[in-house]
Amino acid sequence: MDAARDAIGATAAEARALIRAGRWSGLTETLAQRFVHLAPVVVPADWVLPLLQFCIRNPSAGPILELLAPGDWETGLAPGGDIRTDVVRWQIWEAGRLTGEVTDLRPVWREDLVTVLLGTSHILAGPLKAAGISAETVDNPRPAIYRTALPTQPAGPLSGPHFVTVKFARPEEIATIFRVTGRYPAGHGAPIHAGDPALIGVDGVHPAFGFPLEVPAGRVPLFWPCGFTVLEALRAARLPWLACHAPGCTFIVDLPPERLSV
Amino acid sequence: MDAARDAIGATAAEARALIRAGRWSGLTETLAQRFVHLAPVVVPADWVLPLLQFCIRNPSAGPILELLAPGDWETGLAPGGDIRTDVVRWQIWEAGRLTGEVTDLRPVWREDLVTVLLGTSHILAGPLKAAGISAETVDNPRPAIYRTALPTQPAGPLSGPHFVTVKFARPEEIATIFRVTGRYPAGHGAPIHAGDPALIGVDGVHPAFGFPLEVPAGRVPLFWPCGFTVLEALRAARLPWLACHAPGCTFIVDLPPERLSV
Repeated sequence: MDAARDAIGATAAEARALIRAGRWSGLTETLAQRFVHLAPVVVPADWVLPLLQFCIRNPSAGPILELLAPGDWETGLAPGGDIRTDVVRWQIWEAGRLTGEVTDLRPVWREDLVTVLLGTSHILAGPLKAAGISAETVDNPRPAIYRTALPTQPAGPLSGPHFVTVKFARPEEIATIFRVTGRYPAGHGAPIHAGDPALIGVDGVHPAFGFPLEVPAGRVPLFWPCGFTVLEALRAARLPWLACHAPGCTFIVDLPPERLSV
Repeated sequence: MDAARDAIGATAAEARALIRAGRWSGLTETLAQRFVHLAPVVVPADWVLPLLQFCIRNPSAGPILELLAPGDWETGLAPGGDIRTDVVRWQIWEAGRLTGEVTDLRPVWREDLVTVLLGTSHILAGPLKAAGISAETVDNPRPAIYRTALPTQPAGPLSGPHFVTVKFARPEEIATIFRVTGRYPAGHGAPIHAGDPALIGVDGVHPAFGFPLEVPAGRVPLFWPCGFTVLEALRAARLPWLACHAPGCTFIVDLPPERLSV
């Protein structure tokens, strides 16, 4: 039995069960690939309105897929799941500083915590491959997040620049990538920029996460809005408490990405 | 000078100024047609999370375009505007009953009131006409809202059926209408149903608003999700206080609808 292949083909419920049982400790990118991967953001109730306001005003960075009531940890998108245990690794940020990484939020759970689930670029991968875009382009082997000079629309205490992810397209792939991803606003939609990274002020030398920017010969960099923008705005505002997924440790729900196309 | 033509061609800011000055007392459908018309919903702060949760879970009925902080009445979508005075007529609902209609919310304004702006089907009109759909189809002369048997996704105290609007398409218009409106989730997106109204349990004899359903010969009824669904869910939950626009009295913002296409 090929465990890696089984993991790729797992259902979302199987993937959550694996994670909950502590039997999956790595990144979730290759887990339950046919299903939607989301980015959970957990904040105290008095921060949820600014968070939602920021996401509503910057929907390409923070596409809201679900909002739970204060204290709730189960969503109809993942029946039987528990957001607190079904994420491989949580980061805890206090007053803008990383103060811990945990595999289980239950010990620190409080009735005033509100969970928001944001779409991720993982939602684009299946539709792009189905449209014939090469795996090398879709699964960029040098994933990264870069700060840009593009401002977001502020919302109360939240503001800051857009951060972006990147894929390197063959010239003949560009139009298809724009067309296909534009149908998935829940996956950050179409690229925010194509071509010269300097035009949007990308700092490719100092990635916020991942690899420095190196555009392979014959390729065009395409840049996407990114949920990191939302997290950075929260952290910059030094909110007292925030839990978010460690990079690459998404929450997997029972939707296929195609359900989210417009 | 043709006042009606001037009104159609007015900018959003001019339209808001007309309304604020009490110089426009009718429906806003023909006012500032090149701009986005939104449906404002104002609730006490302790009802805003369920309202947002319901809209996030039923985005085709309640596409969220803006959220204001408690007590705020100005949005970046309408600089210089005041949501309280720039709507022709507000309805006030208390515990699920209509208790008043006012042209100015300022006398009853409170610091705990939160405004959410939802997209409306008006957003679809310009793009549909630009795509060659006849004005007779787009501007249905028998507008109405009907209850259906389609359930919404509940959110805390909020639940209930979907309500729908209708347009009557020529057979050769149907595909274009689906294609064009699908690009505008902010305008309720593509139809939720085409053809036999009985299949979704439409009660065409007793419209919730407007005309009984009569499908003209040679036409196919297309049904759209509708913000009325959100208002009915709120009213059914008997929230203590709610302000919403009187039917046809939208809040006009500085965006052209094309900016909202995906």
